Amino acid sequence: MKNDSENELAFLSIEEAARLLRRKSISPVELTKAALARIERWNPGLNAFITVLGKRALREAREAEREIARGRRRGPLHGIPIALKDNFWTRGIRTTAGSKILAEFVPKGNSDVAELLARAGAILLGKTNMHEFAYGITSDNPHYGPVRNPWAKDHIAGGSSGGSAVAVATGMAFGATGTDTGGSIRIPSALCGTVGLKPTMGLVSVAGVIPLAETFDHAGPIARNVTDACILLQAMMGRYPEKIAPPDYRKLRKNRAKRVRLGWPKQYFFDRVDQELSGIFEAARKEFVSTGALVEEVSLEKPAESAEPSTNIALAEATHYHKSMGYFPARAAVYGEDVRQRLEMGEKILAEDYLRAMAWMFELAAEFDKAFERFDAILAPASPIPAPRIGEKEVTIRGERETVRSALVRLNRPANFTGHPAISVPCGFTRAGLPVGLQLIGPRFSEARLLAIASEYEDATEWHKRRPSLD
Amino acid sequence: MKNDSENELAFLSIEEAARLLRRKSISPVELTKAALARIERWNPGLNAFITVLGKRALREAREAEREIARGRRRGPLHGIPIALKDNFWTRGIRTTAGSKILAEFVPKGNSDVAELLARAGAILLGKTNMHEFAYGITSDNPHYGPVRNPWAKDHIAGGSSGGSAVAVATGMAFGATGTDTGGSIRIPSALCGTVGLKPTMGLVSVAGVIPLAETFDHAGPIARNVTDACILLQAMMGRYPEKIAPPDYRKLRKNRAKRVRLGWPKQYFFDRVDQELSGIFEAARKEFVSTGALVEEVSLEKPAESAEPSTNIALAEATHYHKSMGYFPARAAVYGEDVRQRLEMGEKILAEDYLRAMAWMFELAAEFDKAFERFDAILAPASPIPAPRIGEKEVTIRGERETVRSALVRLNRPANFTGHPAISVPCGFTRAGLPVGLQLIGPRFSEARLLAIASEYEDATEWHKRRPSLD
Repeated sequence: MKNDSENELAFLSIEEAARLLRRKSISPVELTKAALARIERWNPGLNAFITVLGKRALREAREAEREIARGRRRGPLHGIPIALKDNFWTRGIRTTAGSKILAEFVPKGNSDVAELLARAGAILLGKTNMHEFAYGITSDNPHYGPVRNPWAKDHIAGGSSGGSAVAVATGMAFGATGTDTGGSIRIPSALCGTVGLKPTMGLVSVAGVIPLAETFDHAGPIARNVTDACILLQAMMGRYPEKIAPPDYRKLRKNRAKRVRLGWPKQYFFDRVDQELSGIFEAARKEFVSTGALVEEVSLEKPAESAEPSTNIALAEATHYHKSMGYFPARAAVYGEDVRQRLEMGEKILAEDYLRAMAWMFELAAEFDKAFERFDAILAPASPIPAPRIGEKEVTIRGERETVRSALVRLNRPANFTGHPAISVPCGFTRAGLPVGLQLIGPRFSEARLLAIASEYEDATEWHKRRPSLD
Repeated sequence: MKNDSENELAFLSIEEAARLLRRKSISPVELTKAALARIERWNPGLNAFITVLGKRALREAREAEREIARGRRRGPLHGIPIALKDNFWTRGIRTTAGSKILAEFVPKGNSDVAELLARAGAILLGKTNMHEFAYGITSDNPHYGPVRNPWAKDHIAGGSSGGSAVAVATGMAFGATGTDTGGSIRIPSALCGTVGLKPTMGLVSVAGVIPLAETFDHAGPIARNVTDACILLQAMMGRYPEKIAPPDYRKLRKNRAKRVRLGWPKQYFFDRVDQELSGIFEAARKEFVSTGALVEEVSLEKPAESAEPSTNIALAEATHYHKSMGYFPARAAVYGEDVRQRLEMGEKILAEDYLRAMAWMFELAAEFDKAFERFDAILAPASPIPAPRIGEKEVTIRGERETVRSALVRLNRPANFTGHPAISVPCGFTRAGLPVGLQLIGPRFSEARLLAIASEYEDATEWHKRRPSLD
């Protein structure tokens, strides 16, 4: 019985929990205990957390409780237990970035996002496991163990923000943060059945986030539904200097347009997609049409050229960072093999190729910007495949072999180049029971609109309500 | 007699010429004829122009004359004949950038600077010779002949804006434009005895200027005195978006501070300077003190590290541009040997070295910014040597051999990194009769102040009044 009520609490949406907190029907301490109980029970098998802050979280929860009792309510995140990916600096709490090199690193200050979420009253449960230095998409971490997919434990959770997606999907946290350099928020969200938003470049501060490749790095929320993602984004934005108002979660329904115009890419995005998933995306398209959206084909020719420029920028910038910090090659032996290999590859990238890639980036952005003159959002898979098995290096898609890395990154990286906001929402399950994520990419700073469109789809579907059975 | 009066006209300052034009004591046509007569007489020996626009200039002059007669006076440049370096796009006028590749290139539009100067009423005499693609500091052009130093014709004029400096120094133009990526305005100014200003990065548009290395590229004026440089800058700025008022040449005296504070670098800038020039700079320092300026030592440690990052950025960006335009390596054989070699070197620069250089740039800028908390300007040589002979590859400075390129660039490139405005003003002559230039570097957007300080020094000296004897 105790377990059941705890589980019920743990799977409340942030919106619902905030309402119950407001009514004093539940308390921050109860929510935190429920989350911690689930972490205790399920984390050993799933490896979603590197650091769990049991006592500290409960102390914060009691403080929130007292504050709320005194009538000082900070907003919808006040008293809500969340998790931060372990590459967000947290004052006095070690921040490993999933690496051995930073295994003992305790920052003196907070990342902007950690600070903003703390000020919003969120309770910090712990720091989530991730691909080492965010430099990969499997979250198969050689130092802290692989993050396991809650829908099939011998499958990857996706990465690099795998631990955050798993914590949220399994009720170990009500929400979490992720970072996304080539899909690292959207990929684990697609593979674990969560909602993951990569906001517009610059909208959420990456100050105090351990970088991967600065041209592409974004920070954003991972949540169990679109409204919760909106609540988290609102807090993570802080006061955006350009006076762009944070999207208001209470207005998501109001923000819905009479006639949503959606672009369905003719090229690239739906070309090399697992056959079963193609059917699921086709059903999602029909669902949008049935909610009244206008779905039309859009021609996007540039994304097909994105592999090489993406590689040139990411490899060069990552190696530059690790060298500038003195980590590489000095401590090359302490890296996992995949990351070390990529850092070595980064040493060989030519400046001329880097600069050509940077120039190409603006061509890609221009093509998307042009498309957004006609469309509110562009639809795409958040992943062309469901979660592969842990250790699997290659997959077969429609008879063709492809590396897991390429398959998971290729439909996500365009939005990292262009800086456009992109969200992954659950849109179905494979026959084997693995979640599938649909991506919506919108014009810059259109988060309010993008979240409204995603929530309209979510309201019409039940996918986000399914819970993995962990026993 | 005719020659004498023409020469008198040709060496009027822009300020004086503007006053006489206002009084109708002289006409734009007379000024233009005077300049064209000097071009006809002296350009064949000096090679300052690639293209001379005799008829077109006279037509423009007559138009200006009519406009002024109708009482429509555009400002101090109205009716003043000037020259543009041949890497500024000019509508309908070929723009070679000193290259064979663009020998027949006739732009459809104007560079911003060409447009702004035309709108200010300046008469365009022609396009000046330069180092091929601005990629060098000798202006020893393999396609259009070497620009010759008017003070000693077997010596270089300096580059890459050599033709502009020579045209101005010899009365073939009243003012000219240059571009400066590693000293290309200040070097020829120092070597030819003109005033050359590299403005704050971004203050003068480089749109429509054939780029060399975009991180370092600046456009600015070359003139016979500080007031004229100010008049040209005012027009070249247009309306700066950040509401920084163009410095007003009529207020240069008013803008003088009670107590000018000047920094005299302890390291680097005065370390490896030709002995004779050291004495000249020391005299300039004393001259500043005698005008009431406070000259104090300033420690700048970073500039000594600038060679490698400068090379990495310039080589990479230049090669990137030439490749992106399809010029290189496709037409490698058509380049001069020095430029081709540098483009080949640029192919080998690693992205990691480029990114490290870009990061270092901010450290250098921070060091200068800190110095500018105490100083209105920093003094430095604009060149540690007088003009070397044409064809000379190396010089000896205080017993040490150094390439001409390194010697001429090393004291100029710091301001290309930091974006701070830097001006070269005449400060003396060697016993052999070659001019020497003093550099003043100021805080960003301090052009009004920097020009005021330079003009105070100029008023106290006579160096800018010397004219080369060309016979």
